[in-house]
Amino acid sequence: MPAAQGIVRGVARLFDAMGLVSLPEVPLANGRRLDLLALGEGGALWAVEIKTSVADFRSDRKWPDYLEFCERLYFAVPPGFPQEILPFDQGLIVADAYDARILRETADRKLSAARRKALTLRFARLAARRLLQSQSG
Amino acid sequence: MPAAQGIVRGVARLFDAMGLVSLPEVPLANGRRLDLLALGEGGALWAVEIKTSVADFRSDRKWPDYLEFCERLYFAVPPGFPQEILPFDQGLIVADAYDARILRETADRKLSAARRKALTLRFARLAARRLLQSQSG
Repeated sequence: MPAAQGIVRGVARLFDAMGLVSLPEVPLANGRRLDLLALGEGGALWAVEIKTSVADFRSDRKWPDYLEFCERLYFAVPPGFPQEILPFDQGLIVADAYDARILRETADRKLSAARRKALTLRFARLAARRLLQSQSG
Repeated sequence: MPAAQGIVRGVARLFDAMGLVSLPEVPLANGRRLDLLALGEGGALWAVEIKTSVADFRSDRKWPDYLEFCERLYFAVPPGFPQEILPFDQGLIVADAYDARILRETADRKLSAARRKALTLRFARLAARRLLQSQSG
């Protein structure tokens, strides 16, 4: 299993234990794509950006674009990743396919009601469409 | 394929062509379960109640409980079902696994913002949970 895919799995398991349901690869209205978006029981929207290597992080100037599309952003990295290079004001998860732990929490930002509604709807339709495809395939 | 399952498939295809994504078997906060809930691009919530036989419809006193959980309710029946016994003020779809047609339209009822939010969230989390299960299975 590629590292990024393993991290998705580990994070999804961690979030599941916390009551959030995960959906990988979520395209956004701004043309970008979240590695993972998680939806809590009360509607919480947490995004996860996966970085498997230092080069992967250094070449990414665009992660701040995600901030307006989630209440929290977590970077998720493999064990051994140099955590000190990651932004201190976002969340941090260390994960592989079998285990994931939140090493740094982050505060909720406020989402407008319209943005929250649009994101939840996008999540819902995308998940159901993929489910239908997985069943007909 | 059992008749009900064929109807689900036919209705889901029809709705897909109309821009709505379908999710079968959606449990509601009142303890009942919708045969199918469809979510439109703009957030429309349409419910479908499947009846495969006259006895199936006659024994159901509870379908009005669905009305507060959707903007529209369609009965979906197989070809040959005696349509005149169905409520005139709800929608009607005739469907099998390969084809579905709306024979009677129905007006949108108003959903409260809170109910709409809760239903969309329920749809989203249920679809994503089933998708995760389908991938890990």
